[in-house]
Amino acid sequence: MDLVSLADIRAAARAVASTVLRTPLLPTRWDDRLWLKPESLQPVGSFKLRGAAHAVACLDPARRACGVVTHSSGNHGQALAYAARAAGVPCTVVVPEGAPTVKVDQMRAYGAEVVLVPRERRSAEADRIAAATGAVLVPPFDDRRIIAGQGTVGLEIVEDLPDVDVVLVPVGGGGLASGVATAVRALRPSAVVVGVEPALAAEARDSLAAGEVVVWGEARTYRTCADGLRLPLSPLTFAHLRARLDGILTVTEDEIRAAMGRLARDARLVAEPSGAVALAARLFHADELPTGRTVAVVSGGNVDPAVLTAALSAPPGR
Amino acid sequence: MDLVSLADIRAAARAVASTVLRTPLLPTRWDDRLWLKPESLQPVGSFKLRGAAHAVACLDPARRACGVVTHSSGNHGQALAYAARAAGVPCTVVVPEGAPTVKVDQMRAYGAEVVLVPRERRSAEADRIAAATGAVLVPPFDDRRIIAGQGTVGLEIVEDLPDVDVVLVPVGGGGLASGVATAVRALRPSAVVVGVEPALAAEARDSLAAGEVVVWGEARTYRTCADGLRLPLSPLTFAHLRARLDGILTVTEDEIRAAMGRLARDARLVAEPSGAVALAARLFHADELPTGRTVAVVSGGNVDPAVLTAALSAPPGR
Repeated sequence: MDLVSLADIRAAARAVASTVLRTPLLPTRWDDRLWLKPESLQPVGSFKLRGAAHAVACLDPARRACGVVTHSSGNHGQALAYAARAAGVPCTVVVPEGAPTVKVDQMRAYGAEVVLVPRERRSAEADRIAAATGAVLVPPFDDRRIIAGQGTVGLEIVEDLPDVDVVLVPVGGGGLASGVATAVRALRPSAVVVGVEPALAAEARDSLAAGEVVVWGEARTYRTCADGLRLPLSPLTFAHLRARLDGILTVTEDEIRAAMGRLARDARLVAEPSGAVALAARLFHADELPTGRTVAVVSGGNVDPAVLTAALSAPPGR
Repeated sequence: MDLVSLADIRAAARAVASTVLRTPLLPTRWDDRLWLKPESLQPVGSFKLRGAAHAVACLDPARRACGVVTHSSGNHGQALAYAARAAGVPCTVVVPEGAPTVKVDQMRAYGAEVVLVPRERRSAEADRIAAATGAVLVPPFDDRRIIAGQGTVGLEIVEDLPDVDVVLVPVGGGGLASGVATAVRALRPSAVVVGVEPALAAEARDSLAAGEVVVWGEARTYRTCADGLRLPLSPLTFAHLRARLDGILTVTEDEIRAAMGRLARDARLVAEPSGAVALAARLFHADELPTGRTVAVVSGGNVDPAVLTAALSAPPGR
């Protein structure tokens, strides 16, 4: 399988520079060997903007007017809507009925057309729209353009901290981890890139152990509060992670909530549960990690205020 | 009175570059003419690090070993402790008895010696320590080194958004507003710099109207939740603001809480009440402001979790 290269990621970085925020690397006040990469500060609240902006930038000029289409109830749909508007390209997001109104309203605020369908029909409906209108389908992670875009996170980490030793990155569908591992491995071969996922949705861990994509299914993964990490890998992201990731750690629900609280109290960052798993690994599983200069990727911050409130009163982490 | 110049601020920027985070300018997702300058992301959680790091950098090499001393129960003490440690310089902070334990612990964690004294003796005690030890006294705002350091916020705003039209900046003792107004006026004369303060602590507004420093006193200003803005101007900051600020707006307590909630929900930033007043002015008093590309300075994020929780359930702003 043809994997994404450092050159692909460098090209993506040039393509998305005008749309994506170059997030700073934040030193933490409690650990002078730990930095945070706050993708929660992207205007759409997550790293997803990077891949989406890259996919839009890759559109064949002759097909730009046909626009883009995706199916998503979450961060990817918002990110694609934002990136499409920034590029002046039409965007349609197929959303399963029952998705949170606030997210649908946000997609519409970015100018996207939202099509509500029964959950089981969302993928077919996106395919149908693509065929009918000529719009380009932009999947959330199973796509080389998306992986290259997310990889710009890794590029920036090594630019800002050239002697980084450990990078901790959340794993859901695996697009972010695939891109980050690709960039960091190429630029800083001695650094270790570790994926982090909830113990209640440890599909990447099981997949890497089994040597093939393992699917738990939503009926099992829905139990984690980290709603962005309930997805299995795709064959493409599995191939990247098998070749380039150094390991996987899992964290508990209590550890995720404690890390969210720590981020709000001591780093002044609002993180969603999925965005807090990498820090949770550093706070609670340091003995399973190499020592050294560590970066935890805070992948997003689109969290229900009630969930944030609960995390603020969670017991502090170690 | 000799005011701080743009050249002073440029020199400060060079001096603090290794200690201070260069914060990004964050576009907001709800208003494409509004950016946030998140000083809450500084490792100590507020812009105060800029002035403190500059004061430390200005130490006479022959006196570095004698260190620095200040009196503060809040952000300035933490900032000076952090900056001193980064420079390898001893630091003493005189803290009034009854100050929050968490803040005292944080100063000690940064390596500062903390001296607890009755509230009314804190200034005299800092003077005594300076005289006895040769430590340099670093006041929180009434100081040209501090104003020049805080002015680097304005320098960065114009670097990142050269066609900025309006800058909104909180006013307490006036160090930040003095520095920002100095930088922005020099670099972008057509831009308007407006100070923002709580209606319950509107000493800067009254001072500028009266043509002299007006003091309300803590017995009156304690009523605002914006605890960092309860101070009167000094003659030095008054002189800067009179010469260089374009106006003052005041905001209500409800508006401050609503702005804190908006920052957490829609910008994924944890702000303290003092840090939210500039955004509150934009959200609730836009009709009193010039139109155009606007930057709101989010000056800090050191907030009690209970206060943040309350703000998360405050009604959203306009």
